Amino acid sequence: MVTPTSTTPVSTASAAAPAPGSGRGGVLRLLRYSACSLLPSAAAARSGARLTTALRARTQPAEPELVEQSVNTIRFLAVDAVEKAQSGHPGLPMGCAPLGHVLFDEFLRFNPKNPAWFDRDRFVLSAGHGCMLQYALLHLAGYDAVKMDDLKAFRQWRSRTPGHPENFETPGVEVTTGPLGQGFANAVGLALAEKHLASRFNKTDMKIVDHYTYVILGDGCQMEGVSNEAASLAGHWGLGKLIAFYDDNHISIDGNTDIAFTEDVLARYEALGWHTIWVKNGNTGYDDIRAAIKEAKGVKDKPTLIKVTTTIGFGSPNKANTYSVHGTALGSKEVEATRSNLGWLHEPFHVPDEVKRHWSHHIDDGASLEAEWNARFVEYDKKYHQEAAELKSIISGELPSGWDNALPTYAPEISPDATRNLSQQCLNALAKVIPGFLGGSADLATSNMTLLKMFGDFQRDTPEERNIRFGVREHGMGAISNGIAVHSPGLIPYCATFFVFTDYMRASIRLSALSESGVIFVMTHDSIGLGEDGPTHQPVEQLFSLRAMPNILMLRPADGNETSGAYKIAVLNRKRPSIIALSRQKLPQVKGTSVDAVSKGGYIISDNSSGNKPDFILIGTGSELEIAENAAGELRNKGRTVRVVSLVCWELFEEQPEEYKESVLPNEVTSRISIEAGVTFGWEKYIGQKGKAIGIDRFGVSAPAGKIYEELGLTVENVIAAAEAL
Amino acid sequence: MVTPTSTTPVSTASAAAPAPGSGRGGVLRLLRYSACSLLPSAAAARSGARLTTALRARTQPAEPELVEQSVNTIRFLAVDAVEKAQSGHPGLPMGCAPLGHVLFDEFLRFNPKNPAWFDRDRFVLSAGHGCMLQYALLHLAGYDAVKMDDLKAFRQWRSRTPGHPENFETPGVEVTTGPLGQGFANAVGLALAEKHLASRFNKTDMKIVDHYTYVILGDGCQMEGVSNEAASLAGHWGLGKLIAFYDDNHISIDGNTDIAFTEDVLARYEALGWHTIWVKNGNTGYDDIRAAIKEAKGVKDKPTLIKVTTTIGFGSPNKANTYSVHGTALGSKEVEATRSNLGWLHEPFHVPDEVKRHWSHHIDDGASLEAEWNARFVEYDKKYHQEAAELKSIISGELPSGWDNALPTYAPEISPDATRNLSQQCLNALAKVIPGFLGGSADLATSNMTLLKMFGDFQRDTPEERNIRFGVREHGMGAISNGIAVHSPGLIPYCATFFVFTDYMRASIRLSALSESGVIFVMTHDSIGLGEDGPTHQPVEQLFSLRAMPNILMLRPADGNETSGAYKIAVLNRKRPSIIALSRQKLPQVKGTSVDAVSKGGYIISDNSSGNKPDFILIGTGSELEIAENAAGELRNKGRTVRVVSLVCWELFEEQPEEYKESVLPNEVTSRISIEAGVTFGWEKYIGQKGKAIGIDRFGVSAPAGKIYEELGLTVENVIAAAEAL
Repeated sequence: MVTPTSTTPVSTASAAAPAPGSGRGGVLRLLRYSACSLLPSAAAARSGARLTTALRARTQPAEPELVEQSVNTIRFLAVDAVEKAQSGHPGLPMGCAPLGHVLFDEFLRFNPKNPAWFDRDRFVLSAGHGCMLQYALLHLAGYDAVKMDDLKAFRQWRSRTPGHPENFETPGVEVTTGPLGQGFANAVGLALAEKHLASRFNKTDMKIVDHYTYVILGDGCQMEGVSNEAASLAGHWGLGKLIAFYDDNHISIDGNTDIAFTEDVLARYEALGWHTIWVKNGNTGYDDIRAAIKEAKGVKDKPTLIKVTTTIGFGSPNKANTYSVHGTALGSKEVEATRSNLGWLHEPFHVPDEVKRHWSHHIDDGASLEAEWNARFVEYDKKYHQEAAELKSIISGELPSGWDNALPTYAPEISPDATRNLSQQCLNALAKVIPGFLGGSADLATSNMTLLKMFGDFQRDTPEERNIRFGVREHGMGAISNGIAVHSPGLIPYCATFFVFTDYMRASIRLSALSESGVIFVMTHDSIGLGEDGPTHQPVEQLFSLRAMPNILMLRPADGNETSGAYKIAVLNRKRPSIIALSRQKLPQVKGTSVDAVSKGGYIISDNSSGNKPDFILIGTGSELEIAENAAGELRNKGRTVRVVSLVCWELFEEQPEEYKESVLPNEVTSRISIEAGVTFGWEKYIGQKGKAIGIDRFGVSAPAGKIYEELGLTVENVIAAAEAL
Repeated sequence: MVTPTSTTPVSTASAAAPAPGSGRGGVLRLLRYSACSLLPSAAAARSGARLTTALRARTQPAEPELVEQSVNTIRFLAVDAVEKAQSGHPGLPMGCAPLGHVLFDEFLRFNPKNPAWFDRDRFVLSAGHGCMLQYALLHLAGYDAVKMDDLKAFRQWRSRTPGHPENFETPGVEVTTGPLGQGFANAVGLALAEKHLASRFNKTDMKIVDHYTYVILGDGCQMEGVSNEAASLAGHWGLGKLIAFYDDNHISIDGNTDIAFTEDVLARYEALGWHTIWVKNGNTGYDDIRAAIKEAKGVKDKPTLIKVTTTIGFGSPNKANTYSVHGTALGSKEVEATRSNLGWLHEPFHVPDEVKRHWSHHIDDGASLEAEWNARFVEYDKKYHQEAAELKSIISGELPSGWDNALPTYAPEISPDATRNLSQQCLNALAKVIPGFLGGSADLATSNMTLLKMFGDFQRDTPEERNIRFGVREHGMGAISNGIAVHSPGLIPYCATFFVFTDYMRASIRLSALSESGVIFVMTHDSIGLGEDGPTHQPVEQLFSLRAMPNILMLRPADGNETSGAYKIAVLNRKRPSIIALSRQKLPQVKGTSVDAVSKGGYIISDNSSGNKPDFILIGTGSELEIAENAAGELRNKGRTVRVVSLVCWELFEEQPEEYKESVLPNEVTSRISIEAGVTFGWEKYIGQKGKAIGIDRFGVSAPAGKIYEELGLTVENVIAAAEAL
């Protein structure tokens, strides 16, 4: 078994240079890839070209006995890991082991020593609780992240085998799953990315983007609305290289799915434009599974759903086909009974030598696959240099130098405008200079102002375009965007709806934050300022509810400069998503704002005090910064010293050195007033217990925006009154 | 036209006594109902019995010309109101006016003078942006809430005709809609409630619960995942009296639905177990609409989706069938062109006399319908007194006296237990004494501990039972629960999932709060204390994100007494939903907690200080109250005076008098430490700028719970260290 240990990037010539070695393993040993090796080198290409023949036999299935052994290895790795942890979900891995074996061993194209190889097939376990299936497969396939010790540390502190698959913990795991339906929608995003890139970069004489996306989803995923949203879009877009396996085991936590889930799933998918196949015996019907995958790969114009009927907890004599095997360790007695039942009379965590030997071919094969691709890319680069450069940027995530110069700046004299309009200028500016910038709206493109004017719509027959039409499917949109973001470091997806409808997609926003997917959430109509649509459409608590979320930036720019600054931050933060809250209504260009100051999160807009000791500090965000400025003007006219602070992004302000924070909000000055068209809850952090927060501690109301601002007290007069009361 | 103005409740004998009058209107004039008149009286029954014949002709359609006039009246009321407001959505009302007319005038059973009459048909406009359709219909039908002046005040401050239908503003509007898909799912909840109550209370010789639920949904509603979740359940449950009209107009905000929505909707619904009908000409095919509704009413075992193909903005020569008529006033020129095109040469807001005259029959008919039902109820009460008493309680919302005595109390000696288990004791205790108490979980009944042991499952053939199996459909569950809650004041639905998955259902939780639906959200596994499932399942920011939401109670009980107290609060708050966060792990019964103290939101658990001046105040919630108590014990051993405060519900604490708050958290004591297994953001409110918040400002991690508590610093030692540092 070949076990390269070097982590030298392939792009250094020495690592890729030929060295002594014989036969298949020998040559391949030299092609070492680290997780950060994303781009091919010429040297790699030279070696790769010689390796094609070595792969000939790889899609031939192993001998039936060996397959059975491998499948039982997978089953018992799951059983044993869950048993050791006394926590976890053995049922799915036991039922899906045959599918997992066939898919990973016979179909999936990957390089275990470089999990980040660009043109790999993507695999998503949407039913993430069954993660021991994935860990067992990654282990057998030779991924460095999942060694035997990792399997034994399942669900323990700091292990690389957490209770649900986490892309940020385990190289080889594409997306973070567990919350049901999300992974499936991520897979739609992955497949979208492939289709988009393939149509942009493939040439009639050379395919440089060509991989499949496979996903396993269970009954729970099927029930979640987000999966229907994503499935409807996948069918609409004709994502032919998306192949979904529905683990139809009839069991969910509450028992038989008959109690809550009796729809005809295949008929629903057909209605959504999918090709469907039913493998009736997913427990032992290996050839049926193989035939189904082959059939699915042959259907180019539709995604395929393969319903694989399995028995949850297959092999457990007393617990198979019951909910008790879903999410609980079998217990030592039942483990023994299962070993006996399946003839697996080994110690825990046993991997038979012949199984090891068999799976070891993936190390060679994977290296070979990548090497072939690398060679192809070198050719591609020669013939299509411009496209290759763009694709490289998408693969590596390296931003073109000077990209941020494209963002517009604004003088105070420039006409007032809604920040949603200014946002559109940013989006269009960025799409011109960043090859992987693409996105769209949940049927509000003309309200969110998110259309990229130089591009058409990403559609079934125009997948090279970059305006994505998500329909009214916020949740699916968020999860699909997460999938696009994790496909390639240089893909920067944005997605848009009204700010209040972050509530519809909060679960996907959270996963964006958790899984370090740098999606840009463009959220317009960010307050009561939207007026007549009323409280169902007026966010009041959303700013705080999102400021409370870890690893995400909640930005609320006040004008053109801050909008550009917000986008600069959003593009730079590739492992931390950004939410940009934007106004429907026109706002003036505020004197004192700047693009770069946004990076500090909070900064001084204006001040007539000296010695860092103003009488008052007025703090505003977004559309209310104008009110703060106007109130400051009046207070200054009355002889007071007033500082106005824009707190455009709380998270970034918190990250500044104490000294800077003190220079903006000196401890000594306790007469602080905040004004923001949202709940005041949380403002205590910056105004202290002696300050005054002006906001809206109730739901909004349907009326013209100006009237609401006035009636709810978001006025200059109220700020002045508050200042006088302090 | 009969226009009763009295608001005297019918339950006083004088209001219901016969008085002079002649003919149909004369007799009916006497049956006056206010919105708060929910229950029939014997006197009403006596009158009502005489009125049956008056209704004979009501389902006969009006003459075709009159129908056309009525339909154009509806169209132009919408056009004119939007034009006057220069804001709103004329397209849907113009397209759906024919359907609206037929449904309201010929099928819907309601009493306009008592919108709260129990056995009315329910109507929901899920495509809430088209609310001028509903307002026009309510106006014509004689609802007092929508007079002509109200129509003219469309979308203005304090009007009863806000920009989307709001049940709390406009009697006659059943649910608050606008966020797409929600109303449809609410309708599933309304139909569930009907089916449940019908099966519980109807007798072979007497139907006392017998009404339909109608809902109009558009393309946007269809795309939202929440509607698929709800539709799947409606099909599963066989809600035969749910009739949904899909306004198939092919236009959404971004243009033709072809750009994002090409699935076969009817086929999808068939897969979900619905009966489907297609009315191909919804613009002028009145008889087709009638036939479809009749057919749908005849299908008893399945809900029906009637796809009604319409033209958005029907009649507008230049804007019909375009997105520009969706959400913008037509403009005066196009309004004139539309008047001319449809031959409607009237002033704005014109209602022809013959249309008024025709619609006026609903006032008599409605009174008659209710009177008939009242008479039937009196009979029912005589024959089935026990059931009648239960039903009365459900109709009125009056809780049985002493209901809260059923809630268990706990001495400190009682064994530690998870609050999710203690919650189940409360649920079971309440279901025994409150006739309208029912609910369930999103496929986590055995984890959330929500099964009512004395009842079976609400299912297609056992709808009299009270355990609802929602499947893995949190969003649909929330919206369906909202529908159940607004069906009858005495229906108290609870619904459950893991606390982190409030993110999946946040949009429905918000609507619960906004629309004053007193749903109880039972949210278990409320922190990192759930352990190995890891960060995807561990809430950290959810407490704050929900504390930020208006009109909702976020409760986090620490033990048995506080759990009982939380349920007491939740049941009492019928217009403010409650979220109860509960632990997976065992917690001790804390000395000093009490059921009743929960009503104050925050209170002193223990204290060894005097003069309201402890050295330290330790504030905990839920599972961390124990840590606070233990730390206090150690600090006291070191000679310090320490007060421990349980802040079980911030909203309730905020509502206490200043004096009380000062008695718990005296301003003078600034050495305050909070401990809570969630983000610290927001705690500044109670600990002040000198206090210390111990919490988790990051995502969680997969490991055994005790290990995570220790590693993330939620320990007694850390509290003591913080105290020493202060």
